[in-house]
Amino acid sequence: MSRYWSKLVQQLSPYVPGEQPKIANLVKLNTNENPYGPSPKVIAAIQAELGEQLRLYPDPTSTQLRQAAADYYGIQAQQVFVGNGSDEVLAHLFNALLKHEQPILFPDISYSFYPVYCGLYDIDYRCVPLAEDFSLNVKDYVQGNGGIIFPNPNAPTGRLVSLTDIEWLLQHNTDSVVVIDEAYIDFGGESAVKLIDRYANLLVTQTLSKSRSLAGLRVGLAFGHVDLIEALIRVKDSFNSYPMDRLAEAGAIAAFKDKAYFESTCNKVIASRQHLTEALTALGFEIQPSAANFIFARHPQRDAAELAAALRGHGVIVRHFKLPRIEQYLRITIGTSEQNNILLAALQIILS
Amino acid sequence: MSRYWSKLVQQLSPYVPGEQPKIANLVKLNTNENPYGPSPKVIAAIQAELGEQLRLYPDPTSTQLRQAAADYYGIQAQQVFVGNGSDEVLAHLFNALLKHEQPILFPDISYSFYPVYCGLYDIDYRCVPLAEDFSLNVKDYVQGNGGIIFPNPNAPTGRLVSLTDIEWLLQHNTDSVVVIDEAYIDFGGESAVKLIDRYANLLVTQTLSKSRSLAGLRVGLAFGHVDLIEALIRVKDSFNSYPMDRLAEAGAIAAFKDKAYFESTCNKVIASRQHLTEALTALGFEIQPSAANFIFARHPQRDAAELAAALRGHGVIVRHFKLPRIEQYLRITIGTSEQNNILLAALQIILS
Repeated sequence: MSRYWSKLVQQLSPYVPGEQPKIANLVKLNTNENPYGPSPKVIAAIQAELGEQLRLYPDPTSTQLRQAAADYYGIQAQQVFVGNGSDEVLAHLFNALLKHEQPILFPDISYSFYPVYCGLYDIDYRCVPLAEDFSLNVKDYVQGNGGIIFPNPNAPTGRLVSLTDIEWLLQHNTDSVVVIDEAYIDFGGESAVKLIDRYANLLVTQTLSKSRSLAGLRVGLAFGHVDLIEALIRVKDSFNSYPMDRLAEAGAIAAFKDKAYFESTCNKVIASRQHLTEALTALGFEIQPSAANFIFARHPQRDAAELAAALRGHGVIVRHFKLPRIEQYLRITIGTSEQNNILLAALQIILS
Repeated sequence: MSRYWSKLVQQLSPYVPGEQPKIANLVKLNTNENPYGPSPKVIAAIQAELGEQLRLYPDPTSTQLRQAAADYYGIQAQQVFVGNGSDEVLAHLFNALLKHEQPILFPDISYSFYPVYCGLYDIDYRCVPLAEDFSLNVKDYVQGNGGIIFPNPNAPTGRLVSLTDIEWLLQHNTDSVVVIDEAYIDFGGESAVKLIDRYANLLVTQTLSKSRSLAGLRVGLAFGHVDLIEALIRVKDSFNSYPMDRLAEAGAIAAFKDKAYFESTCNKVIASRQHLTEALTALGFEIQPSAANFIFARHPQRDAAELAAALRGHGVIVRHFKLPRIEQYLRITIGTSEQNNILLAALQIILS
């Protein structure tokens, strides 16, 4: 604390990201990274941009990247916003579209950055409890609000809300923006991007950190009506004219173009998830149905914090949240078959 | 305008960056980029990081980059903050350290992003007029304020304030933070970083976009007392945990380590500035004394907007600000000798 701090800084409770360990050879299943590297075409595209032109500013409007993402979804570039990771995109949209008189709504079990953004921008919020089984009922969100946001599939539960339910919510909530945070959508869900032409208050966010294996490059997106995108651009241009560097933009464009590689790695992760779910169930774990690249699991006889600590002793890190309702759960990122086998072998020893 | 916009978005007046033309072969002297590319060691360092590990998040604390910058200045890594370009660093510091009861102070002729940040964060400000000759008198800033910020050398004038004057100001303004925005310091000034151990309210910002030829990579820094850096970290961790991508961090570390290349390009720019100043003076221009990688020039007989348009007709773009007091000036980035000669040849035709 310092007398030079603004009142805001004194009050902030910053987000704490999952550990990025500096020790090598850990089996890192704690931050939902893709176990497979990015497409070779992404590497080649960055390679081609890597040179003398780094002296020049990037395109402040990121037109080519927005076009590549628009082409992927069959929409217009003006319906796309890009930012320095989806966390930056989320920050801007909280400020631009979710700050109104009434509180915003999000699930009680959800991405723990949402309340942090509310603190940063002085936005009132109300948590809507998930059902006992962690399913999300869109009917619970039909109440006065300044905006609605939830991840789909939800994090850290992995559970999916159907597009039918999302469309129902959009039809019953027209006075505020509904944000569907699709960080994990490519591992088994259907994107709501196809609905943006029909619902002017729908904003969909995505990231290249998970299904496109580019957490290290920092690229996030939002899709929606041009008026919503315009709001994000206005905030972005009041904050940082050039958030996307030249290499990130080149890599991201290539990632959207290499559909075959993308589909192949997603399918591998989905197959591993199925296998891991079966193996953990055999070890006595109860697993939430997951459409993400992680599973959310509890063991009825073992304390989750102790399990996480024991796994770390075996060189495997998973994520444990000390939060109400989920403190007996572990969030485990889907690794390669080899990583998953190391996890399973460690658990067999720990549980025996 | 849309009913879904927050009040803030409706009121914003975003910053307009200098044009990034999509036409090739223009002589681009409008956004103060370095005419020389980055160090070959920077390219090699990015190359080494370019691969499978892009699937993994970067270090959210950017410890190695902060250490490299600290080593360069002989300070501690905890006295360094890094962000996605100095515009992001500035945005965070306005929110964290310049938002208080009293208005902040900056020169009437200065970086035009400052009032935009004030709009974004609802900060009151007062512009302090530069002297008739555009020099900055630090005594004018000894008045009640919530913070002080100015670029040194100033932009777009290029004029330098001495470290003696900055130290005098720090001794006479101890109740608020003084930010010295050193985007252009390496082209002829002396950095105030050496003062941070003695003045707990001094924050110095820098960028790798100018003297280190990395505008395309987006890396900015702040140097100051650990308490000031802590305030920036708290805001950053409430906004985006991972603003620095892996490639930018690798390149930036290498840029700080290759001192010889850095000094050589800075010296070339300084020599070109001297030559260009003499040649433009011979053409009748009046030139502000510059310690930056640009010069600020007016021609007593010719309208600046018309000159800028005429230069564009010759394939040369320079920056013209339609703003009070400086509307008859052009801001011209120092190019290579070849680029400067094309500029001079065009001006000879235009002025004849």
